[in-house]
Amino acid sequence: MNTFGRNFKVGIFGESHGEAIGVVIDGVKAGMPLSKEDFMEDILRRKSGAKGTTPRVESDEPEILSGIYEGHTTGAPIAIIFRNSNTRSSDYEALKEVPRPGHADFTASVKWNGFNDPRGGGHFSGRLTLPLVAAGVIAKKQCGFSFKADLTEIGGEVDKAKWPDLLAATAKEGDSIGGVVECRVDGVPAGLGEPFFDSVESLISHAVFSIPGVRGIEFGDGFAASRLHGSEHNDPLVATKRPMLAKNGAGGVNGGITNGAPIVFRVAFKPTSSIAKTQRTLNTKTGEIVDLNVPGRHDVCFALRTPVIVEAVAAIVLADLLRCQDTVFSRL
Amino acid sequence: MNTFGRNFKVGIFGESHGEAIGVVIDGVKAGMPLSKEDFMEDILRRKSGAKGTTPRVESDEPEILSGIYEGHTTGAPIAIIFRNSNTRSSDYEALKEVPRPGHADFTASVKWNGFNDPRGGGHFSGRLTLPLVAAGVIAKKQCGFSFKADLTEIGGEVDKAKWPDLLAATAKEGDSIGGVVECRVDGVPAGLGEPFFDSVESLISHAVFSIPGVRGIEFGDGFAASRLHGSEHNDPLVATKRPMLAKNGAGGVNGGITNGAPIVFRVAFKPTSSIAKTQRTLNTKTGEIVDLNVPGRHDVCFALRTPVIVEAVAAIVLADLLRCQDTVFSRL
Amino acid sequence: MNTFGRNFKVGIFGESHGEAIGVVIDGVKAGMPLSKEDFMEDILRRKSGAKGTTPRVESDEPEILSGIYEGHTTGAPIAIIFRNSNTRSSDYEALKEVPRPGHADFTASVKWNGFNDPRGGGHFSGRLTLPLVAAGVIAKKQCGFSFKADLTEIGGEVDKAKWPDLLAATAKEGDSIGGVVECRVDGVPAGLGEPFFDSVESLISHAVFSIPGVRGIEFGDGFAASRLHGSEHNDPLVATKRPMLAKNGAGGVNGGITNGAPIVFRVAFKPTSSIAKTQRTLNTKTGEIVDLNVPGRHDVCFALRTPVIVEAVAAIVLADLLRCQDTVFSRL
Amino acid sequence: MNTFGRNFKVGIFGESHGEAIGVVIDGVKAGMPLSKEDFMEDILRRKSGAKGTTPRVESDEPEILSGIYEGHTTGAPIAIIFRNSNTRSSDYEALKEVPRPGHADFTASVKWNGFNDPRGGGHFSGRLTLPLVAAGVIAKKQCGFSFKADLTEIGGEVDKAKWPDLLAATAKEGDSIGGVVECRVDGVPAGLGEPFFDSVESLISHAVFSIPGVRGIEFGDGFAASRLHGSEHNDPLVATKRPMLAKNGAGGVNGGITNGAPIVFRVAFKPTSSIAKTQRTLNTKTGEIVDLNVPGRHDVCFALRTPVIVEAVAAIVLADLLRCQDTVFSRL
Repeated sequence: MNTFGRNFKVGIFGESHGEAIGVVIDGVKAGMPLSKEDFMEDILRRKSGAKGTTPRVESDEPEILSGIYEGHTTGAPIAIIFRNSNTRSSDYEALKEVPRPGHADFTASVKWNGFNDPRGGGHFSGRLTLPLVAAGVIAKKQCGFSFKADLTEIGGEVDKAKWPDLLAATAKEGDSIGGVVECRVDGVPAGLGEPFFDSVESLISHAVFSIPGVRGIEFGDGFAASRLHGSEHNDPLVATKRPMLAKNGAGGVNGGITNGAPIVFRVAFKPTSSIAKTQRTLNTKTGEIVDLNVPGRHDVCFALRTPVIVEAVAAIVLADLLRCQDTVFSRL
Repeated sequence: MNTFGRNFKVGIFGESHGEAIGVVIDGVKAGMPLSKEDFMEDILRRKSGAKGTTPRVESDEPEILSGIYEGHTTGAPIAIIFRNSNTRSSDYEALKEVPRPGHADFTASVKWNGFNDPRGGGHFSGRLTLPLVAAGVIAKKQCGFSFKADLTEIGGEVDKAKWPDLLAATAKEGDSIGGVVECRVDGVPAGLGEPFFDSVESLISHAVFSIPGVRGIEFGDGFAASRLHGSEHNDPLVATKRPMLAKNGAGGVNGGITNGAPIVFRVAFKPTSSIAKTQRTLNTKTGEIVDLNVPGRHDVCFALRTPVIVEAVAAIVLADLLRCQDTVFSRL
Repeated sequence: MNTFGRNFKVGIFGESHGEAIGVVIDGVKAGMPLSKEDFMEDILRRKSGAKGTTPRVESDEPEILSGIYEGHTTGAPIAIIFRNSNTRSSDYEALKEVPRPGHADFTASVKWNGFNDPRGGGHFSGRLTLPLVAAGVIAKKQCGFSFKADLTEIGGEVDKAKWPDLLAATAKEGDSIGGVVECRVDGVPAGLGEPFFDSVESLISHAVFSIPGVRGIEFGDGFAASRLHGSEHNDPLVATKRPMLAKNGAGGVNGGITNGAPIVFRVAFKPTSSIAKTQRTLNTKTGEIVDLNVPGRHDVCFALRTPVIVEAVAAIVLADLLRCQDTVFSRL
Repeated sequence: MNTFGRNFKVGIFGESHGEAIGVVIDGVKAGMPLSKEDFMEDILRRKSGAKGTTPRVESDEPEILSGIYEGHTTGAPIAIIFRNSNTRSSDYEALKEVPRPGHADFTASVKWNGFNDPRGGGHFSGRLTLPLVAAGVIAKKQCGFSFKADLTEIGGEVDKAKWPDLLAATAKEGDSIGGVVECRVDGVPAGLGEPFFDSVESLISHAVFSIPGVRGIEFGDGFAASRLHGSEHNDPLVATKRPMLAKNGAGGVNGGITNGAPIVFRVAFKPTSSIAKTQRTLNTKTGEIVDLNVPGRHDVCFALRTPVIVEAVAAIVLADLLRCQDTVFSRL
């Protein structure tokens, strides 16, 4: 279902070109100061306009419908909607018979027997990450941890100085590129998470893979750990007043449970599926292979927008975990 | 919590050196033939004894307590337990003050205020994957899909001919190595999964990260996708009677929903945490850094045992998804 | 949390005097015709204006934000909001220090540390049953069963001819009365529900007790069953082509599972808490016992509005059950 | 599914005449002293042997498989099983074609396509309340509240002095009678529960209706509230250091949330379904109406055993609520 969490519950709805998209956040602590302005920084980080992202100007103004009274959270569910505007539905009419490669057009149609809203990807649109970001703002506030995600490579290039040229060249070819985001969460106490099945990695990966375009996730040493010896990867505690780990190859988690070190994970994003370049694909109605030119203006590298989204889902997971953990509970 | 699933629900319990470990599987279809023998093949695949795994002979005989009547599943929950035996608790007494690097000894102690069962990792033991495998056997039967997981590399080595020497050399050094498992599921219909938050990747990664020792997961082209162009990674449909994908870079999933191609994902396992080699770590009682020699016999490469476990959790996820999907529902 | 259901999931939000109240319904079958007009009949049944209900004219116009495309459900979540208007917040200012007897003013304030929205009961308002009714409209459509709830008594009076006088007399005294609603669902197949813990009675009572003002629920013979002999209450099957029950003292459910007979249950509603009559209660700020006159116009008997709400929650439960039941699944 | 709870999760399994029945309890606080002896008092209260209950001597010895180490809870799931013995399967062979009136024989068979275990009611047996009682023991310990349930009437008779004669007379006729249990929980803090959909009444009724044989539940004034005036039923706060309610007609709950007064509710149990008296019912194989004599020895009034079961499920609900409630959380 379109909800996540047991104690800090987030549900999203809406379609790219429908009336509105939105989110309901339940389990928000009462008494936190919260206003529309609190959302703008993260919304702007996600917003289009940067080099390599689509120039479409979206209506990203949050409208808070509930859960706030006199500038504070009430404890009741917070509903936030974003009206859609500046949509060009006609762009998508021709795509009904020819599902765009890499998009969910085909699977959505199969799943919902052809009744899915096809305009702009409908409910599968990347625009749905906007309410996720809004939920993340509240989750961050509730956690009080420090979330910091950065794009570390695009198209395999780790030297940020070379990115402008790479983006320009890719745009010129009418093509797209992917990227990798690294996220680090500082300040998380030890003891959160469960051995089975709700390990911290389980919950974070669950939430991360609902961001459109994710292809992989790794924690700490990640895939590289599979090529290390135990004596290299093992992470001894070292003497301090409060126990600390020498390395952080486990990414802050042992046995599914936070160990007090920063949580560190990396997320692989695929290249943008919509490209200007001509593609050969199936017309599902006629059965013929046809040329497809995806109309509209699209991100050369949508991964550029994703760090704030990755932070958001990590914050949602941790806000959810914080509320029902026994050690935290018994210590407060 | 120690349960997974909404419609095919799996809950595990037990400690490595306690009375018994076990699993309760709820949501099993009534009328499937099922006997103790059905479990033995997968249990043997997981069992110790192969080169590179610990020679400890565990008591892996399943005892079915409920849910079976006259050789068939009844529809009621199936409880299966495995008695523990041949345990050497004294091996672990010395480790109480000195948490083993890479293990959950420290985090379990923090989470449960020191009341956790420390013997053999307690509830965090790799032995808990045995009931997972048992649940997987039932899940596979219920799905009817073909699950095939293989170890593709250990210690970074992909040439299987070189593995015996690598394992022998690592064992001689008293060290350990990790590995990568690739899993492929054939026969999955299109239309399973949800866009948010229960994408197929979300659910599979959630389940996979509850296997001890997992550091990363990737679907289809995975991390490599982040270094491809859209024109390379995009996966056009090609003309056939039933729509088919040209490549399978998405690993069988678009927009969180199965597309009818095989589901393909890879899982990175860290090297075994318990090694014979001396390690320097903290005595949490005295605050001194001490030499630690982890006693007992341990797997040089526990990843060797994991393919059947990866299959099991994938099967559990798909059995869970199958039961509540609308298209599947309306078509049967 | 403010959500119900596993497969047909309903979440509500909003406060009586906030921006809007609303509901998100997830798990709706794709392809059902659905428009704003479909909601009006049930909304009108719940609406104020009948004898004995408050003359306040609410803004009960549904605004559908998502999940509908070209007049049909898409399979994606349906969000519906109702703007609030015609509110008189000043009525409630004086009540902050003096919680109204029978209302949630006190408990909401304790739960949310005084940050709850106090206007008109905030999130606890009976107005929140409006989105429930909207969700019920969709649930009924999805089930295809026949739901019929009626008020069978008010203030203990079962003779409907006497109700107008009873209501008038009670209103004149500035007092209020309660009532009992009986709900019957026809057309439910045998086999829905679970023995533990999701019996049909468990799920229906769970949903029913989230309607404000419910004090009790009973199925079939109900409390009277406790005074019967087994030979009177037992319900033998009688010979027909498809097995049928002679009586329906079990209210359509045996062992938690529907038996094919109509589901029948009764719900007791308390008298309206807000009354014009002066009440003696605590000023929680000063600690004094004071006279309280609850301002505003209120229902003499809000139970008059509830049959459609009872139908709605019963429909939500059955829509949720229908999607994941094995026998239904295997027979379609 | 056969599980209840989000934070204190209880799952039961087993059949009356299978290998064993049992329960897994997850979310138990670490460090509580717990031994087999702690279960015996409540198990004895439920046990057969009292006047009016069946003389069958069951094997009610709990076997704890996990979650306890050195006499204390570890924080990991606690699995407890009860071996079945002294069963007389042959009693039930004849009933396969003739479902017993009032039992789940027919619905279980429909739900599970005839593969259900028919012996002694299988998974639907009242014996499954034994693991519930065991879970209740742990829940009570974890809550620390005072639970007190009593049978207040049997067969409509409230004068306990007359019960022995009533039971004897009913037994002589080969018939059975029902009863009403009242449960009171003292010591519950204000602020537990949710307005929608997880009101305290919702959760308690959900759990209570999974006890076999329940026909109704009411809180506080219950059904009688529907016949009261608001001025009678309303419950003003009265001056004390900590706010207190004058009456307790709401049964300790306002707006779904505990108000600090004792939680009080009543549960109606039907008469025992198995009676010696001859019943006329359907042979589902032949389609004929036949005489049925249910063999075996059965409770004249199984309600006599139920108070401890009602306490158990109430304790399970409150243990579950306690762990994730914001006010409780923020105050500890």
